Amino acid sequence: MFHPELIEIGQRAKQAARQLAFASTESKNDALTLMSEALLKNEGEILKANSLDVQAAEEKGLKKSLVNRLRLTSASIAQISQSLKEVVALRDPVGEGEVWTRPNGLRIQQTRVPLGVVAMIYEARPNVTVDAAALCLKSGNVVILRGGSEALESNKVLARVIAEAAEESGLPSGCIQLITETNREWVQQLMRLNDYVDVIIPRGGAGLIQTVVQNATVPVIETGTGMCHAFVDRDADYKKAIPIVINAKTQNPGVCNALETMLIDDAVAENFLPLIGEELRKNQVEIKGCSRTCEILPYAVPAIEEDWVAEHLDLILSVKVVSGLDGALDHIYKYSTKHSETIITENYTRAQRFLREIDAAAVYVNASTRFTDGGRFGFGAEIGISTQKLHARGPMGLRELTTIKYIVYGDGQIVK
Amino acid sequence: MFHPELIEIGQRAKQAARQLAFASTESKNDALTLMSEALLKNEGEILKANSLDVQAAEEKGLKKSLVNRLRLTSASIAQISQSLKEVVALRDPVGEGEVWTRPNGLRIQQTRVPLGVVAMIYEARPNVTVDAAALCLKSGNVVILRGGSEALESNKVLARVIAEAAEESGLPSGCIQLITETNREWVQQLMRLNDYVDVIIPRGGAGLIQTVVQNATVPVIETGTGMCHAFVDRDADYKKAIPIVINAKTQNPGVCNALETMLIDDAVAENFLPLIGEELRKNQVEIKGCSRTCEILPYAVPAIEEDWVAEHLDLILSVKVVSGLDGALDHIYKYSTKHSETIITENYTRAQRFLREIDAAAVYVNASTRFTDGGRFGFGAEIGISTQKLHARGPMGLRELTTIKYIVYGDGQIVK
Repeated sequence: MFHPELIEIGQRAKQAARQLAFASTESKNDALTLMSEALLKNEGEILKANSLDVQAAEEKGLKKSLVNRLRLTSASIAQISQSLKEVVALRDPVGEGEVWTRPNGLRIQQTRVPLGVVAMIYEARPNVTVDAAALCLKSGNVVILRGGSEALESNKVLARVIAEAAEESGLPSGCIQLITETNREWVQQLMRLNDYVDVIIPRGGAGLIQTVVQNATVPVIETGTGMCHAFVDRDADYKKAIPIVINAKTQNPGVCNALETMLIDDAVAENFLPLIGEELRKNQVEIKGCSRTCEILPYAVPAIEEDWVAEHLDLILSVKVVSGLDGALDHIYKYSTKHSETIITENYTRAQRFLREIDAAAVYVNASTRFTDGGRFGFGAEIGISTQKLHARGPMGLRELTTIKYIVYGDGQIVK
Repeated sequence: MFHPELIEIGQRAKQAARQLAFASTESKNDALTLMSEALLKNEGEILKANSLDVQAAEEKGLKKSLVNRLRLTSASIAQISQSLKEVVALRDPVGEGEVWTRPNGLRIQQTRVPLGVVAMIYEARPNVTVDAAALCLKSGNVVILRGGSEALESNKVLARVIAEAAEESGLPSGCIQLITETNREWVQQLMRLNDYVDVIIPRGGAGLIQTVVQNATVPVIETGTGMCHAFVDRDADYKKAIPIVINAKTQNPGVCNALETMLIDDAVAENFLPLIGEELRKNQVEIKGCSRTCEILPYAVPAIEEDWVAEHLDLILSVKVVSGLDGALDHIYKYSTKHSETIITENYTRAQRFLREIDAAAVYVNASTRFTDGGRFGFGAEIGISTQKLHARGPMGLRELTTIKYIVYGDGQIVK
């Protein structure tokens, strides 16, 4: 049995979706502009609520990096407000499409339409509350937000402020709703609310995402976990290999497109490892090495099986010497989460084999895995990075928040 | 705990998928041609196995329409064989895509690649065994087939014949596998075999599909159930309305795009109902009417709530008088399975409102809902009709059996 209040949220969402689906781009942009302004106007209230969350998190002894993600400042509110204006500038995918005419005269128009009601389940990051709501709204989708409980007070104010602004601008009430109940049973029910929710997008760590995948009956877009590899081939140009490995590992180690494992062709291991090892040490990166790596680099720590499997999301790099490209392909095949993988090589044929045989959302030659990102790919925005194959794969922008509808114009055609 | 034999099937599939993913179009077409020939060569054995299934089904007292779907003949085997040659002629979507260059020189190529391993769960229709295998193979996907147990003997021979032909042509072994275990627990496990299966496509009745949606952890593409409506507006041209309603209801009443409910604008009910009623009677269609319909048509049977909800899939039409377009939209909103809906009208504005406000895979003006079909839409083939919004919606052809992969060509780029 579903909680009646959850059903009410679902019904309100569905009702709003029926109208929001064909709101004009202009009216959606007006709403986003008002939302952007409302955040600045209500800065004081937002900061006050946020300080309650931060204080409680600190008292609970939450990890410092998590407290930092939770904390809002005048500057970060200004940035969130600005990001809404950037969503205004993005192209609205709703209504785009193509059309063709069948021999019997039927005109078939394949048109982009919103998904309907999107439920976002995410961790204690108040900026996601606003980002997700803005991208959903721009693509004509109603959003039901369920953020991490540590950010509840912040999210309550943020969601109220932007929902009120959207409504004030003339969009239907219920376009943006926050679940304020922290009981986990509600999340379980939300995942099975097929009558009212069209898709669930979980954003966060591997645990959160697996919980949703295992329990949801509503269709899920799986995002995020990235066990990314770089393979340094025997024909790698070290002037490319070293900056790429350092960049992919250290530029922002806590994100899903950061490098977790470096594989090295055994033909060049003795030559390359001391060079990259030195650079990694300079950058405070701890090396977890296979036995061969540990022979070559006395300062490497022996890797355990877990080091090939789990994201470190920290200044730690697993390093393994493999028997050429085949060894690299086998290792990646076994451990990849199919997010982003790169090969560093000057050899044409091995580069092409890597691109072809690796099954991942993004495969690179001679570039950092950190590029797997909606903004860096040129999509203008990102609701997440899909690591599944259905619907969307890789960085998801506004277009991935839509589906299609076939509109068919006839003048009396029947099937023969 | 998974059955070890099922895990083996999964492992074999995954292994085959790794190679089949980049098999050339030529080699896939060679396999399809050999498969087509092998069916003809093995006609005797196929018919013998099929007659066992048919006999058992008849002894069990299976419905005649189901026995007919189960039965194979020389002619139907020739047709199935021919359909494989038609798949040869279809364009291979694998490798298609677009490319763009970012300001930093990174070249990003969005390329179509196979989904990987597709599991098909379907009813006792031996032709689906071959169709599904052919479409999966052409799009580079390995298929695991699980057909209705009444067709087991036929499927065993069909799957063996085409799998051997595919292997003989040089494709990896394991591209086409049939689950011959009829224990339902196997299907339950197949739906949760996330390590080896990329997507499940159930094909069949509402019960089968709901079971898969409710129990699968593997991503599902929901197909099929169609509670299709036609709305006869006050400005309908009866010369279009009558043929369209008769065609949509009677041309093939057992399929998902057949008409189930006709809605009539109250302004023309008294005028139109006797005309269409007469035609429906001529075509042996039973009318389940709302109270107003029963007043106007004395031969109509009073409809119960169930008549607005469930597919008849038979020569039965539910008929309801509604208060204009708004009444029609409300009724469809409440009862639609979002498959196919049509409005019959000469009024421009009401036609556009219907097209815009109805949320369904296909919405029509002045045409029969029976056109919702991959072949009739011009896709050349169809693996099913998706009634969900993620990944694919409406008729699914080869393109819908693929996903994308971003291939990124760099020359040392790092993120700043």
